[in-house]
Parts: sequence; C-alpha cells; structure tokens
Amino acid sequence: MGGKSVKVAIDAMGGDYAPQEIVKGAIQAAEKDEVELMLVGGEEAIQRELKEYDVSSLRIRVVNASEVIREEESPVTALRQKPDASVLVAMRLVKEGAADAVVSMGYTGAVVVSAIEILGKLEGIRRPTAGTSLLELAPNTVVFDLGPNADCRPGDLMNFAVIGSVVAQKILHISNPMVALLSNGAEEGKGNLLVKSAYPLFKKSRLNFIGNIEGNDIPFGRANVIVCDGFTGNILLKFCEGLGDSIIERLRVTLDKRLPKEELDAIISDLFALTHIADVAGGGMIYGLNGVVWIGHGRSKAAQIAESIHQVKLAVETNLLEEIRLELRKL
Amino acid sequence: MGGKSVKVAIDAMGGDYAPQEIVKGAIQAAEKDEVELMLVGGEEAIQRELKEYDVSSLRIRVVNASEVIREEESPVTALRQKPDASVLVAMRLVKEGAADAVVSMGYTGAVVVSAIEILGKLEGIRRPTAGTSLLELAPNTVVFDLGPNADCRPGDLMNFAVIGSVVAQKILHISNPMVALLSNGAEEGKGNLLVKSAYPLFKKSRLNFIGNIEGNDIPFGRANVIVCDGFTGNILLKFCEGLGDSIIERLRVTLDKRLPKEELDAIISDLFALTHIADVAGGGMIYGLNGVVWIGHGRSKAAQIAESIHQVKLAVETNLLEEIRLELRKL
Repeated sequence: MGGKSVKVAIDAMGGDYAPQEIVKGAIQAAEKDEVELMLVGGEEAIQRELKEYDVSSLRIRVVNASEVIREEESPVTALRQKPDASVLVAMRLVKEGAADAVVSMGYTGAVVVSAIEILGKLEGIRRPTAGTSLLELAPNTVVFDLGPNADCRPGDLMNFAVIGSVVAQKILHISNPMVALLSNGAEEGKGNLLVKSAYPLFKKSRLNFIGNIEGNDIPFGRANVIVCDGFTGNILLKFCEGLGDSIIERLRVTLDKRLPKEELDAIISDLFALTHIADVAGGGMIYGLNGVVWIGHGRSKAAQIAESIHQVKLAVETNLLEEIRLELRKL
Repeated sequence: MGGKSVKVAIDAMGGDYAPQEIVKGAIQAAEKDEVELMLVGGEEAIQRELKEYDVSSLRIRVVNASEVIREEESPVTALRQKPDASVLVAMRLVKEGAADAVVSMGYTGAVVVSAIEILGKLEGIRRPTAGTSLLELAPNTVVFDLGPNADCRPGDLMNFAVIGSVVAQKILHISNPMVALLSNGAEEGKGNLLVKSAYPLFKKSRLNFIGNIEGNDIPFGRANVIVCDGFTGNILLKFCEGLGDSIIERLRVTLDKRLPKEELDAIISDLFALTHIADVAGGGMIYGLNGVVWIGHGRSKAAQIAESIHQVKLAVETNLLEEIRLELRKL
C-alpha cells in the first residue's frame, strides 16, 4: 500500500447504529479497499468497538470529538453550541487536507449545514444538490435534484445538469451524456415556467441537450442526465418506492403458491431493488460543495457503510470534485 | 323511459376512429343506459354508419355540423374560422339547454377552447382542470390537477381541492373526503413555495384537510383527494405508466414458462390496469366549466365511448356541476 490511498473521515457517532455498525463497516471497507480511515467521535466508545476486531494490519485511526448532534436539535444552533461535534471535526479534517472525503450517517440537516460552514459551496451554487443514479431501473441515468432544492431558478437547473453530466461521465463512464429536462410534454415550449425559461439556456449551453422528456421516459434510459427541481424529483423518487411496494404486495398475493418460495422471493427482491433506488444506494453524495461528502441513511448498517466508503473513494480517485469545479466555472 | 333521461351531445367527428367507432359506441351506450344521444357532425357520414344497425328503438338523433377541427390547426384560429365545427355545435347544444353534457374524442386543445368560449368558466377558475380517480391503484383517491395547470397559484390548488372533494363525494361516494397536499415532506412547513403558501389556506378552509402527504403515500389511499400543480401531476401519471411498462417487461421475461400463459397474461393485464390509469379510464372529465364535458382519448374505440357516455350520465344525475358551482362560490 502506497501513500496515495484515499483518506476518509467517518463520523462514527452519526446514525442509528453508531458507533457499533460504523466501526464494523469501516473495518470491512479497510479490509477490501485501499483506504486510510479516520473514525471521528468519542475516543473511548470507538476504541471499545475496535477492540472486538484485529485491526493491526488496517489503516484506521481514531480522531477524538467530544460532542454529537442530535436529530431533534436545530442544525444551525447545534453547530454553534457544539464546536467539537463529530460531524464538524470530520469536515475540518477535509478542510485541513488531512482527509479527502467525509462519510456521515448523521442527521442530514446537520451534515449539510456543517459542510457548507466548514467546506463552503462551489462557485455559482446556491444550495448543495443531491442526485442519484437510477441503478437497476435505468442503469445509465442519473437524476438531479432529488430534494434539497425544492424551488429552483433556471440557473440552478443548469448547475444540476453540469454536475449530473460529470457524474454520468466519471461514475457511469458515459462519454458525452445526453441531458434532458423533465417536463409535461416533449416539444419545446412545453413545461412550467421554470422549464420554459431553462430550455433556451440548455439549448445554447455546451451540454449534450436532447430536449424535454416526459415521465414515462424515465425508466427507459432515454437520457443519461434527467434534470428537475427538487420538489418534483423528491416526489417521483418516493412515488417510485410506493408504487413498487404496492405492486410487490399484490404480486406476493397473486403468485403465492404458484411459484416456489425462493423464486417468488427472488422476483420480489428484484422489484424492490428496481423501485427503491435510494434505499439500495444507502444514501448519496451531496454535490456543489468544496469537498466530497456522502450522507448515508441513519438506518445504515456495516455493509452500507463499507459501500459508502467505497463510493467516496471512487469519487476521489476519479477527480469528480475537480471536474465539477472546472465545469461550473465554464458556465 | 321517461322524459328525464340524460341528454348527451357527442362530437361524432372527433377522434382517430370517427365517425365509425363513435356511432358504434353511442349505440352501445343507448342500449345499456337510459340516455338520449345527439350525434353531432356530417349528417351523411353519420347516417351511413347508423344504417348498419337497428336503432329504431333507441333515442339517437343526428345534429348536422359541416366542419371538423384538425389536430394540426391552432385551436383558437380554427374555431374562429370554422363556426360550424362539430365540437362547437355540440357545446352550443349544452349552452342552449338541448343537451346536458358533451363527449368528444377530438383534439384536447380544441375541446377546451371551445368549451371555454361557448360554456364559460365557473367563478374563480382561471383554467379548467383535469383530475382522475386512481382506479385500481387506490380506488378511493382522486388526484387534481393532472396537466392543464402547469403553473399554479395557491388559490388554484384550493379550487382543485374543492372540485376534487365534490368528485370524491359524488362519484366515489366518500363522505367528508380527506384532502392532502402532495409535498416533499409530511410536516407542516415542508414543500415548495406553492405548497407552503397553500397550506395555511387549506388549514383554515372548510375542507377535511389532513396535511401534506409524500409520493410514497399515493398508492395507499392515505388521502381521498390529492392536490398538486399540473406539472407535477402530469409527470407522476406518466411516470406511473412508464414504471408499469418497465416492470411488465421484466416480469414477462422472468415469469415466462414458469406460469401457464393465461395466468401470466392475467397478472400482466392486472399490472397494466394498476399503472395505466388514464388509459383505462379512456379520458376524463374537465372541470371548472359551466357544463359537463368529457374529453376522451383520440384512440378510443366503441367500448370507451360507451363508457364515457355512462360517466357523463352519472355526473349529470348526481348534480356534480351544481355542487361544484356551489362549493366554489362558498370560497
């Protein structure tokens, strides 16, 4: 192992199963990937967990942080009152260059606010954005924004398109990704006011803009980057889960006893993966920040934590952040 | 048959299979329902179709209209240039009291514009709205708006809620229907600017407002009336179809040869009905007009036409329009 391995700061106190599952997941990641991990949080509690494993050959160290942000606290107030909170200490490690990325399963609001405060936003970004690859449903498509930006301006959509294009290139390995605006009609001139104002900006941009696509196009990979406001994106993502659950419920009844149990279970878990995109990913990167930050679900267990560490490692190795910074600057 | 049967004006020239399927569908409806039908359009062409059937015992008459609006024409211009267009003549029959409702499978734009022009809009309505019952997916839920109103003001959402509540009561027979705003979070204060501004209006209204619901709640009947802007509604409805198609494609492959063909076909047609809400309904009522108007899909065949006639008959018999007018006035 050389000195070039990716260094990840992990908020060991964030999430429903912290620190046990966080420590366990970090160990799994360090066994699999060439990474250098910093477990940030209460030193005593973390060391107690580490003692359960043989970590002598792994590059894992503990960085003490004496405080933890609770979900019921207002993020802004909590961060003011707890300067030694684990999530803040983790962000500072990136800011100071000691770490390349942060992974936290903590409360989303607190992670976002501390990332903005410590790392800062990239040029032109009003609020960080979250997007996702549609995974099984449409493996060559990412959708931005999925929630943080409920109300958008045309320029925000342009930022999402630029970020989405870099993600499609670097993570999905798609050259010249096709970008589309999600709309209520395919023709130019269709859309709400936001889409109609964004359309000409997209058209004259350097993006590979293919126009509007409609809701029924989403699962069929007709675009590699689908751009929408975070209100629409969030409702879509959750509706996809709800519809998946509803269909699974129905098939379970219809197919019960007509198929061997293990075949039925396989079909159902396939449909689950198809429709529960965010669940399967276990969380996601937030973009538009001066740093690589992954926010995982609070309910994540060791396997998801190891996968998150793997994902941020990929992002660091592919220079995702540098590329996004560069492309945003060209706007 | 008494003198009280519902009178429906049918645009016999609108739709992909006009006038053949329209005439056939009208006859099916007249055989089944106690209705009085006016087939509006080119008299010769309609009579030629009618001659194929024994209609002597049915209450069907032809009202001549010499012109037809084509899909490629601008609705506003076409209606100015073609005062004797079938859709306009049909609307006039309602305006004059000769008919209680209009059914048209013609070009949506032309039907809406002619309805606004001849019948007019109800008090407080900026644009007519379209909604649907979620049928198989959530039999006790209607969603408004599904397309016509891409950009909404809080007052528009309130109108949709009022109209949706009347539809839920009169058509779905739900007393005191639960009304919800579709949002990106359940708590008060979540939403885009539109939802956040509508929330207090809903709260202080006479509606049975239960707050925000999220995308994953849609298939589970957690509200009887789901209110959203037409941009979001349209994307959702189409995404539902796309996701349905995608899942059907996958199941067809997975289940092929594991189940007898007829069982597989039954499962697939069940999933199709579950996810293709608008297709199964064959079109829908448009609301907010001074008249009962049904716009069917251009591709509708006789069975859908008969069903549309049945639906407008129900609307007339339940005094849907009067009730909507009354409730809107109370706002």
